[in-house]
Amino acid sequence: MSEFRLDERLERDSDFLTKIGLCELRLMKDGRWPWLVLVPQRPDVSEVFDLTPLDQTMLTFETVLVTEALKTVTGATKINTGALGNIVRQLHVHVVARSEGDANWPGPVWGHGTAEPRSTEDTKALAARILDALKP
Amino acid sequence: MSEFRLDERLERDSDFLTKIGLCELRLMKDGRWPWLVLVPQRPDVSEVFDLTPLDQTMLTFETVLVTEALKTVTGATKINTGALGNIVRQLHVHVVARSEGDANWPGPVWGHGTAEPRSTEDTKALAARILDALKP
Repeated sequence: MSEFRLDERLERDSDFLTKIGLCELRLMKDGRWPWLVLVPQRPDVSEVFDLTPLDQTMLTFETVLVTEALKTVTGATKINTGALGNIVRQLHVHVVARSEGDANWPGPVWGHGTAEPRSTEDTKALAARILDALKP
Repeated sequence: MSEFRLDERLERDSDFLTKIGLCELRLMKDGRWPWLVLVPQRPDVSEVFDLTPLDQTMLTFETVLVTEALKTVTGATKINTGALGNIVRQLHVHVVARSEGDANWPGPVWGHGTAEPRSTEDTKALAARILDALKP
């Protein structure tokens, strides 16, 4: 029986924030947008239908929690969510705060240019605000 | 009290396939990819968190149903799902069959070039296969 192990590319491109019930929550290392990623801690899962029905419901619940927190923290015009996985096959759900005039607005964040680093200070501050907004 | 009314742009850019419990299922008029859209038939909903928790679960259930059907019909390498809404604010969930070497692979379908029409014959055939795969 295999165990959950975070994909190396996701590990490299994002910082760990917290674990929610099913998912690990991570912050993408890209200062262009407040961009979170949820990774269900289950092995060998690529599509949502690979999860059990209970885990599918948990994923929805946790995605909504994170979406609301990100909307509160950023005041974004629109939250973009997506599960693509064309490059990294391990199931991961993107939750991105979008605002009019941001990089590539109103186009998608995926496949647009290259990541721009966020300072350690800014990363810590954003992470703290998101974690605070996630508190019950 | 307002009623559900399909956004005009969604209506123009896609063909009606069927109604599932919560959602209207539509096929995008773009021959580059087999591309479905689920639209929850609820008024004034832009983000998933605008839906009731029951509707959120229904949306997940219906998205998974449609994802599995599209995977069966196309044999795609990966299904891409996403809810962006930067242009059309009415909540709609994209479910797109992606295969290695398709248009813009492994980049996203959103914001890439312009739609290429699919013949009426091909549209009917694809729609029939999807509806067949959705049968219980």
